[in-house]
Amino acid sequence: MSEKPNEEFTPISELGEFGLINKLTERFPLRNASSIKGVGDDAAVIEVLDKQTVITTDMLVEGVHFDFTYVPPQHLGYKAVVVNLSDIYAMNARPTQITVSLAVSNRFSLEFIEKIYEGIRAACSVYEVDLVGGDTTSSYSGLMISITAIGQADEKDIVYRSGAKENDVLVVSGDLGGAYMGLQLLEREKSVFESDQNMQPQLEGHEYVLQRQLKPEARKDVPEILEALGVKPTAMIDISDGLSSEILHLCKQSGVGMRLHEDKIPIDPMVYKLCEEFDLTTTTVALSGGEDYELLFTIDLGDYEKIKGNPNFTAIGHVVPESEGANLFTRDDKAIRLTAQGWDAMLRADH
Amino acid sequence: MSEKPNEEFTPISELGEFGLINKLTERFPLRNASSIKGVGDDAAVIEVLDKQTVITTDMLVEGVHFDFTYVPPQHLGYKAVVVNLSDIYAMNARPTQITVSLAVSNRFSLEFIEKIYEGIRAACSVYEVDLVGGDTTSSYSGLMISITAIGQADEKDIVYRSGAKENDVLVVSGDLGGAYMGLQLLEREKSVFESDQNMQPQLEGHEYVLQRQLKPEARKDVPEILEALGVKPTAMIDISDGLSSEILHLCKQSGVGMRLHEDKIPIDPMVYKLCEEFDLTTTTVALSGGEDYELLFTIDLGDYEKIKGNPNFTAIGHVVPESEGANLFTRDDKAIRLTAQGWDAMLRADH
Repeated sequence: MSEKPNEEFTPISELGEFGLINKLTERFPLRNASSIKGVGDDAAVIEVLDKQTVITTDMLVEGVHFDFTYVPPQHLGYKAVVVNLSDIYAMNARPTQITVSLAVSNRFSLEFIEKIYEGIRAACSVYEVDLVGGDTTSSYSGLMISITAIGQADEKDIVYRSGAKENDVLVVSGDLGGAYMGLQLLEREKSVFESDQNMQPQLEGHEYVLQRQLKPEARKDVPEILEALGVKPTAMIDISDGLSSEILHLCKQSGVGMRLHEDKIPIDPMVYKLCEEFDLTTTTVALSGGEDYELLFTIDLGDYEKIKGNPNFTAIGHVVPESEGANLFTRDDKAIRLTAQGWDAMLRADH
Repeated sequence: MSEKPNEEFTPISELGEFGLINKLTERFPLRNASSIKGVGDDAAVIEVLDKQTVITTDMLVEGVHFDFTYVPPQHLGYKAVVVNLSDIYAMNARPTQITVSLAVSNRFSLEFIEKIYEGIRAACSVYEVDLVGGDTTSSYSGLMISITAIGQADEKDIVYRSGAKENDVLVVSGDLGGAYMGLQLLEREKSVFESDQNMQPQLEGHEYVLQRQLKPEARKDVPEILEALGVKPTAMIDISDGLSSEILHLCKQSGVGMRLHEDKIPIDPMVYKLCEEFDLTTTTVALSGGEDYELLFTIDLGDYEKIKGNPNFTAIGHVVPESEGANLFTRDDKAIRLTAQGWDAMLRADH
């Protein structure tokens, strides 16, 4: 379906010492004044004046988080950066630097790894962050990419998971479930292709969910929009594991309960259509699918008028006392307790 | 020889959601005032006042960098932190925070992973750094650990690789080759054990080199000693890949050549003895062995009197014009051009 490792042929071992490192990290201009020294010393040097620094890290493992049968290497590089930047935006901060550690087995060619770095470079350009360091190593099998992202914010602007309070409105950006349905589609076409290699994948018309899965974007615009609207969320988190899991995080860390209204959950029409095709319910997909990289946040009830009607945001519930717990209110107004997800989702979670 | 994965039995999958994360990151007190928020949000928050921030990252991969046949999990955790802190000290900075990303296959039990974190906790305590974040994920096979270390320094104190100048003295801390000989010893005893499982490993009397390999320390004391002596190095790097490789880095980035005197290279008597036993030359081991985590630096000739005779330091050469290149002067005064090492060493290198 897409490019395979080693369709081009320079073995990594052919490069001279540090040749790989130099090759991969060239053409990464430093864009931020805070990046004093990037790649090329024992450590990078950063200068942050009068702001706080936020730091997050995420590791993607071949066979667990991605499958090169249908994930092009450029997209892997792009997505690996984006999932980290999403965490920075979830602090209401601006990302400024990343470091990239890559472990690759000898099954991968230089050209393949360069394509991963092409994707990393594209993300650095779109999100205006600087690659300032990293580590390249061999692996026994497969490919792992671990990225650390660094950002800045004024102390007063940082939003934690812990500030939600009773009567706050629960808001989500964008729509949910697309990334998960993109994955279902790719997995189905992979099975078809494996059983009959003459079959061509049927992906036309599904660009939206495929993009949500293969080349997600972080909501860089949300902190900007909120600032322009004069709204500071009381708590915020990004949706990497699914709406249910993220709501439970906000509840636990804020010491509150939440009511989520099923009929308010924003779902793209294509996700509805695909859920029918795959015999899934959209609510389950939104609650447990994950990887949407939308931002979920609570705002003071007094700020609700400011975001009401804004096409970027949907109010999906509100904050209640902790004793009520976190519940989904279905279309026929039944309360269903939100539960944590299984191991798979947990494995992807930050800590 | 040492503990194997799964000699104790809690499968990781038995823990509830986020149970593993909570379990692993409990009992990590925050020691640094700059650690505003540690584990538990989308990102950690750090506040650095009037200083610069240095950041470095290193990934260790099972089967490439370590072998659980003879590496106890506590030591792996300890060493994974230390190799990163060494890079921070090599900037003449003080480490303050780390993030830890861990990928593990289902072959590993909770108890085994907890032992890795015991080692991480021990290193955090000894070096007074805070664990502020990370990521835990499953792997398809094997165990990978990726650590990012953050440190601070006054802008005027930071030492890059690029400041060495003609006539500077080349100095190294401690002694070299021990970590490599420790590895040779462990590999030999592993082979013996594999061919006859009744054989017990012969490791007595070799504690020094074993410690150098299994539980190395970063030279936390060196920046302190240099400050007390009133010496600021003109360039500095830590020895992770071997003396030869590190000298070439300093030369390239400073635009200079260097003369290294074979008879000055500090070697522990046990390393001499083991080299004889293994039919290796101590100079080759020091030049190419790596993993000693000593600091290699250049100082102004005028500062030489201040460090002369100090038991922590040995002057091993000096800086010459770039056109001379980097050469080893042997005991019989022949010049041998220092060369970069092969792929293996390169793979471990930072960039």
